[in-house]
Amino acid sequence: MNRRSISFSEPTPVPRRSNSYATSISRNSRNLTRRISGLSTNDLEEAEVPLDPVEHAVAEEIAEIKRYEDFTTIDWVQDAARENLRRKARRQERAGFFDQKGKLAWRRTVWEAYDAGQGWIVVTLIGIAIGLNAAFLNIITEWLSDIKLGYCTTAFYLNESFCCWGAESGCDEWHEWSGWWVINYLLYIAFSTAFAFTSARLVKSFAPYAAGSGISEIKCIIAGFVMKGFLGFWTLLIKSIGLPLAIASGLSVGKEGPSVHYAVCTGNVISRLFGKYRRNAAKTREILSATAAAGVAVAFGSPIGGVLFSLEEMSNYFPLKTMWRSYYCCLVATAVLAGMNPFRTGQLVMFTVRYDRDWHYFEVIFYILIGIFGGLYGAFVMKWNLRVQAFRKKYLSKYPIVEASFLALATAIICFPNMFLRIDMTESMEILFLECEGGHDYDELCDRQNRVQMIVTLLLATVIRIALVIISYGCKVPAGIFVPSMAIGASFGRMVGILVQALHERFPDAAFFAACEPDVPCITPGTYAFLGAGAALSGIMHLTVSVVVIMFELTGALTYILPTMIVVGITKAVSERFGKGGIADRMIWFNGFPFLDNKEEHTFGVPVSQTMTAHPTALPATGLTIQDVEKVLTDSKYQGFPIIETPESTVLIGYIGRTELRYALDRAKRDQLASPHAICNFTPPPSGAPRASITSATLPPIDVESSEDTTVDLSRFVDPTPLSVHPRLPLETVMEVFKKLGPRVILIEHRGRLMGLVTVKDCLKYQFQVEHAHEGSREALGRKERQEERVWDVMKRAGGWVGGRVRGLSGGRLRLGEGSPTAASPAGGINRGERSPGLDGEVELEDRRNVV
Amino acid sequence: MNRRSISFSEPTPVPRRSNSYATSISRNSRNLTRRISGLSTNDLEEAEVPLDPVEHAVAEEIAEIKRYEDFTTIDWVQDAARENLRRKARRQERAGFFDQKGKLAWRRTVWEAYDAGQGWIVVTLIGIAIGLNAAFLNIITEWLSDIKLGYCTTAFYLNESFCCWGAESGCDEWHEWSGWWVINYLLYIAFSTAFAFTSARLVKSFAPYAAGSGISEIKCIIAGFVMKGFLGFWTLLIKSIGLPLAIASGLSVGKEGPSVHYAVCTGNVISRLFGKYRRNAAKTREILSATAAAGVAVAFGSPIGGVLFSLEEMSNYFPLKTMWRSYYCCLVATAVLAGMNPFRTGQLVMFTVRYDRDWHYFEVIFYILIGIFGGLYGAFVMKWNLRVQAFRKKYLSKYPIVEASFLALATAIICFPNMFLRIDMTESMEILFLECEGGHDYDELCDRQNRVQMIVTLLLATVIRIALVIISYGCKVPAGIFVPSMAIGASFGRMVGILVQALHERFPDAAFFAACEPDVPCITPGTYAFLGAGAALSGIMHLTVSVVVIMFELTGALTYILPTMIVVGITKAVSERFGKGGIADRMIWFNGFPFLDNKEEHTFGVPVSQTMTAHPTALPATGLTIQDVEKVLTDSKYQGFPIIETPESTVLIGYIGRTELRYALDRAKRDQLASPHAICNFTPPPSGAPRASITSATLPPIDVESSEDTTVDLSRFVDPTPLSVHPRLPLETVMEVFKKLGPRVILIEHRGRLMGLVTVKDCLKYQFQVEHAHEGSREALGRKERQEERVWDVMKRAGGWVGGRVRGLSGGRLRLGEGSPTAASPAGGINRGERSPGLDGEVELEDRRNVV
Repeated sequence: MNRRSISFSEPTPVPRRSNSYATSISRNSRNLTRRISGLSTNDLEEAEVPLDPVEHAVAEEIAEIKRYEDFTTIDWVQDAARENLRRKARRQERAGFFDQKGKLAWRRTVWEAYDAGQGWIVVTLIGIAIGLNAAFLNIITEWLSDIKLGYCTTAFYLNESFCCWGAESGCDEWHEWSGWWVINYLLYIAFSTAFAFTSARLVKSFAPYAAGSGISEIKCIIAGFVMKGFLGFWTLLIKSIGLPLAIASGLSVGKEGPSVHYAVCTGNVISRLFGKYRRNAAKTREILSATAAAGVAVAFGSPIGGVLFSLEEMSNYFPLKTMWRSYYCCLVATAVLAGMNPFRTGQLVMFTVRYDRDWHYFEVIFYILIGIFGGLYGAFVMKWNLRVQAFRKKYLSKYPIVEASFLALATAIICFPNMFLRIDMTESMEILFLECEGGHDYDELCDRQNRVQMIVTLLLATVIRIALVIISYGCKVPAGIFVPSMAIGASFGRMVGILVQALHERFPDAAFFAACEPDVPCITPGTYAFLGAGAALSGIMHLTVSVVVIMFELTGALTYILPTMIVVGITKAVSERFGKGGIADRMIWFNGFPFLDNKEEHTFGVPVSQTMTAHPTALPATGLTIQDVEKVLTDSKYQGFPIIETPESTVLIGYIGRTELRYALDRAKRDQLASPHAICNFTPPPSGAPRASITSATLPPIDVESSEDTTVDLSRFVDPTPLSVHPRLPLETVMEVFKKLGPRVILIEHRGRLMGLVTVKDCLKYQFQVEHAHEGSREALGRKERQEERVWDVMKRAGGWVGGRVRGLSGGRLRLGEGSPTAASPAGGINRGERSPGLDGEVELEDRRNVV
Repeated sequence: MNRRSISFSEPTPVPRRSNSYATSISRNSRNLTRRISGLSTNDLEEAEVPLDPVEHAVAEEIAEIKRYEDFTTIDWVQDAARENLRRKARRQERAGFFDQKGKLAWRRTVWEAYDAGQGWIVVTLIGIAIGLNAAFLNIITEWLSDIKLGYCTTAFYLNESFCCWGAESGCDEWHEWSGWWVINYLLYIAFSTAFAFTSARLVKSFAPYAAGSGISEIKCIIAGFVMKGFLGFWTLLIKSIGLPLAIASGLSVGKEGPSVHYAVCTGNVISRLFGKYRRNAAKTREILSATAAAGVAVAFGSPIGGVLFSLEEMSNYFPLKTMWRSYYCCLVATAVLAGMNPFRTGQLVMFTVRYDRDWHYFEVIFYILIGIFGGLYGAFVMKWNLRVQAFRKKYLSKYPIVEASFLALATAIICFPNMFLRIDMTESMEILFLECEGGHDYDELCDRQNRVQMIVTLLLATVIRIALVIISYGCKVPAGIFVPSMAIGASFGRMVGILVQALHERFPDAAFFAACEPDVPCITPGTYAFLGAGAALSGIMHLTVSVVVIMFELTGALTYILPTMIVVGITKAVSERFGKGGIADRMIWFNGFPFLDNKEEHTFGVPVSQTMTAHPTALPATGLTIQDVEKVLTDSKYQGFPIIETPESTVLIGYIGRTELRYALDRAKRDQLASPHAICNFTPPPSGAPRASITSATLPPIDVESSEDTTVDLSRFVDPTPLSVHPRLPLETVMEVFKKLGPRVILIEHRGRLMGLVTVKDCLKYQFQVEHAHEGSREALGRKERQEERVWDVMKRAGGWVGGRVRGLSGGRLRLGEGSPTAASPAGGINRGERSPGLDGEVELEDRRNVV
């Protein structure tokens, strides 16, 4: 009994606490386990014990450390427990403070009101910021889009509509760049390429995470995955600057994914300023869900659609409280946007269409056709876009800027001849949605004579845009896929509409068209375009309710709610034939994030013991030296270790996270106390022993002298109540626990003994094995790879040729390809181990594919 | 070792299965526990074992029994496990069947397609049925409402608008009952009373569960509470007949709650016809959620609003799959309703309003006012309605028919003088929503001269309707509260609108009204009515997103989406000041259903050991005789019993439900095998022992002869993997487990030993204690009771006086009060132990208040 104990629970500044407690622990260390295992229920029904502030401070410090651990997942169960601790601490602290100054009771009221209202203050601020940012982006995007075509003589910073304010279609103040169309065309191409180049350059240099859509990653982050810097200030800034450039460059990319991303960044950056959110992952997740909703709300001017999008797509757990926060955030953001009125139309969106004519039941046949198109479109684009992404990851990750610039160049060249591709996607949708009656006939779209030509043009627009979306989505500029999909659907839908209209005019008396009134236009092709847009959006995202509401809020087409629902329903049914999950889910799988999809249901019919890690590295409750434990930490990469009574009995006592263990050992060593041979004691002190009850919340230094056989009490870092299940519990139930409660690890316990442990990754691995057991033979994979190699070969040669030409022309000053200064960093692309120079520190990603 | 074992797993028809298995069990019974506790992980990683069909059949039979256990909750974890078993069984069965007839592979394809599509077939059928029912109800309601005023000479079964088809405002074919208004008035009152009487009579005699709204009960049923007959065919029928009568009677009741109820009944009745849903509670819950959505969808003609209502209000767990089913069900139901076109307007709803004028920012102040009204309205009505409900439960439960008839009489008399109360609530809303421009000016509502009169009338309408709603909601006819609330909100809103309009016309040049354009109407009072309706609806139900969408779908007021959101937001914020939960949640609490509300968040800061039942009745794995076990069953009322190794070690082995145990014992006795002294053996057979693998799915008779010391193997009725947690786990986490995973019981296990068990009721009890620790002193309760007694006294005297008069006038043939034949059954009212004669058997409710 000559051992002395080092306990972090022992703050020396308080003299009245003698070492008797520590001694009592060490004295009891031998028979402690027996006493605990014999713990009667009466012992457990202890009253609410006063919270130890030291313990609380330690927990806070560990929470702070954990926040910076990249590519780990949050343990929601622990997080909730920690939050309860925190509330208790706050309550006690406050009680102490205000009781001391009894007269100032009103302060307490004010403080509590502030504390309760803090969430609303934060959400209001975030909503305002998002609304302002959205208005700013809209204005910049319009200006950049117009600058490609000409300039304002009165003030260069005005776009065409502001320059010609009040005038119908153009004015003298707005000049085209040149009278000669070739010059205009070349300038148009040059501007497009320059915009794409700038955007990609900014992304690459300052915030690699700002590339792409960001929806998949945010989904994982909201589910608890930690990605350092993904929602940081630099990402916000670069995404906000890069997005208008990318859209103005004419690339087939949309703004809603990036809108969600910058909105969530805004939410993250602002909420970090408030203590309530800095350390609480669950509350932050609430805010992030709300801001994701606001992102869609401002992108489409669709507040309710935003809420539903967040519910349907972003959040795997969406309690009503979050819905209410999202609602409020969307309301504030859209109200601010409406107040800014960026389009000067008094509308939230660029277009509002009203269909006065009603639909007929026979049209349902064509609606079904459009629905099927939506489903096929989604499946096709997802399949090929994923292959392009794989190709990009493998071969193009070093040349993100060249790629984006080249894509913009090609898009500008290809799209110019087609009247629907030439103009902005939103603008083209507005035209396609319009009824023919009412005098606005863009380029004789409604003219009977042009019908064949229109159909061909629309078909070409559909096909070309699909191809462009496939190769453009995922390139290293801020890029979404909603608006391009809608534009594709709109052009296809309008084509169908014109065909139906022609059919009706050819056979006006057919029984099929009996519902049409004579001598009145019966078919409205614009509504087909509208439905097509909805179908394509639903097809690519696999959303239903939110698409209907968004389409509804975009256009106010109340009478078309049933057709919209029919089309979206058909699309959904067709999509499901081609596999579960929209493009965001596919990207999650593609990137190998540890994300358990709520949408999927599984029947494995096996017990959890099939997937568990059968012999996890467990630490005995006592007996190991610091050295031993450190060796375990070095040798294994597990995120945590179960604590067992003895290696022989394997009775489960608790669980300690890697971070906690690391922290505990570091503190023991940092304070120069523990020799490497000190024994680590993980057993909690027996309940009923005196506990620390001091008021100072700072971490006390520990000054017990070190000796060879010291005991280090690490018990307060051990989670004594880890979730554990029986080894025979069905795997499905365990997956439900992971999905719904969100622990990081579940221990497998049989009659008190540790049998194994299981993590989300284990479940995903098993799921992958089962699902892909018969799929993708080696030959097929080999063939795919050979194809990809051949494509890359062709591209390299073409690149080399062009590079040589450019070098020749510019006298060697301009270099493309490997030599280009933009591609100088060792690895490019977000999906490969990439370094963002100096901003977020080292972002060394492990190959995330290894989880599957 | 002379014990012989009776095992249900031993089907004698298959001769090759000797008794060796059973013998091996009994031989090993002594050292079995040791072997199992020493079970290595290798043993656990057994391959997928072929399913025992007998076991499966037993599980199915128990599931069937459980379905009929009234007022219990479903164990979702077990339900999911059983479903997995079932799928496996189906797969094997099918494989066996089709492998035998190799040539008929196409049959397998067809069968599988049917099996997969069965869900959609069921939902389609349900949707069609709901749509047809809704159309039928709309037509009947209109006819009944009109018959109070007059009749059609061409055909008595036509209502006014069909009678006068094509004519503007009235025609010669439609006759009022008399030229003298007093006769009309009296007939109106007589009809109203007669309708209410009939409705209440039907409800009382045939389906007591058809009374009221039903939303609270359905919420609990969807969460897993079993209420026999609540969703049965008779309830469906009576609700469908009683609803039009109740609405036509002029009572201040709405149709949406009952719509939800009959829709859910339809879903339940139809889905029961399909085997897939008959035994699977989780799948049925999916269908019920979907039908609840369809109920709202057809009531308001608002398909998306219905989906969101189901999500926000009805379902405590709403996965995307359910959303998608709800979406489809709403689509089908509304499409059928639209196809039936009951209003002959081509619209889904009775009114569609379009506001062409935009709103101004200064109006937000008045919107806030309306929002505050909505919140206060909700809080006020909930408080007083609950008191009325308590009064009704205590004193009026014996006189449901008298009560309903009297209410209808009083409503008819009071409402006639007020122009907005006289007409149907939907009609009055339509009038109040309208813009003044456009020529439809009901009773000079828009006339400047009448402004003061209108304001007074509207104020009276608001106040009287509030009083009527408070006393009417909850009376024993089908009755909802949505539409009355909306009507109240609309009259208040219109009043505010007229006031603002007057203000503007008084001070047209004030800076406050600077946003108004001169000489153009600036304020649209109709929009205030619209917003008021939304506010009141949100205030009473505590809904946000669904209210916005419903209002939106009702009227297509796209430009008013931000004002609607603002108003609803304010209402929500005000409501929350007065406690959580809308009227449905309050009713759940009032009735004491075991329902854990998802909306609430708690911080108790105590471990689960504080609330658990510390010394649950546990059964030892072996040693008890059948007699002993039966005594335990008789002595205790627990829903199940943990199985422990020995009373001394208390090592947890499993859990057996009361039903399973009862069933197992009954089978043992029914088959004349087990003497009361046979030993019950709950230990599962050692893994690796041979298992039954026969193909017959029928339950085999057991013909092992009985002897004094037989062992009865009950192991297959034991759940070997009950959910168990550590006693120190925070109570909040345990409640999360209940909410999200839905087990019926959670065992408390510490190092393999049973410490206690906890149920939802335990949690609710604790919660109630904590929340109501300082509330409701004895004196206040006593005062309330005295008030109630006094009111009842006055009512009794008035009733006696009226009764005497009526008896006197009718010569004793008519009797009211106790003597009335309608009140002859010993107890009335759904909330008291009530007997519905002969329909659903005995529905003896325990006093459900005892859970809190």
